[in-house]
Amino acid sequence: MTMQPFTHEYFMKKALLEAETAFSKDEIPVGAIVVVNNQIIARSHNLTELLHDVTAHAEMQSITAAANYLGGKYLKDCTLYVTLEPCQMCAGALYWSQISKIIIGAQDHHRGYRVMGTQLHPKTEVIFGVMEEECSQLIKSFFTKKR
Amino acid sequence: MTMQPFTHEYFMKKALLEAETAFSKDEIPVGAIVVVNNQIIARSHNLTELLHDVTAHAEMQSITAAANYLGGKYLKDCTLYVTLEPCQMCAGALYWSQISKIIIGAQDHHRGYRVMGTQLHPKTEVIFGVMEEECSQLIKSFFTKKR
Repeated sequence: MTMQPFTHEYFMKKALLEAETAFSKDEIPVGAIVVVNNQIIARSHNLTELLHDVTAHAEMQSITAAANYLGGKYLKDCTLYVTLEPCQMCAGALYWSQISKIIIGAQDHHRGYRVMGTQLHPKTEVIFGVMEEECSQLIKSFFTKKR
Repeated sequence: MTMQPFTHEYFMKKALLEAETAFSKDEIPVGAIVVVNNQIIARSHNLTELLHDVTAHAEMQSITAAANYLGGKYLKDCTLYVTLEPCQMCAGALYWSQISKIIIGAQDHHRGYRVMGTQLHPKTEVIFGVMEEECSQLIKSFFTKKR
């Protein structure tokens, strides 16, 4: 049997590490990474409070960083791993990027792109539920702490 | 009669100047400014090609710059003037910013936030049609040149 270390769980754990870093900075704990050919080319976490910037979601930073790395604005061969379902803004940015795949941890039933009716690019494949419990638990812990 | 220089047209002209700068850089010509108490606190134009970044829309840059100026992420007392109807991404960012007003020049019937079904913040007031013809004409000229 061949070892297969590069599973969705492997990469989601990396995104979750980013989310944990956000948690430690008192930011809503969301992390994201972008992968091409099993190589991580961008990693980021939510920084909206630190930067006083509603646009500083983990996904937005990873989209910008990945495009910068690739030297082009389209992320057609890329996969984004994100610990929480993207919002309207991030899904809108992913739409423009024509990203190949989006792998999502926790669902967001209140502000997630699905309940808000945001459209992704027709070529983008989406997979939900990778390490959903761990991703969701981190966010719940954050809001429990805040209350 | 009191002089009233600070009309919607006055500020939209400033946004249109930004759009013209984008045009001169071979970028899709969209400009935006943010105004508080008749003072312009942010001005920007689309830079997606130059920066290789789908997130570099005029509105996104103005939201970030205005929040930076104000030292807080919410734009509750701000008005955004933008020469083209915002897309999903930009409308999603404006949603998070809780911006007070959005004044729009040209409509975007293909990728605008309305046809895409994006939700703005319930407290945000929107006005369409300020210098619509000029804003629209600039974009049409750009795509005619491109063909």
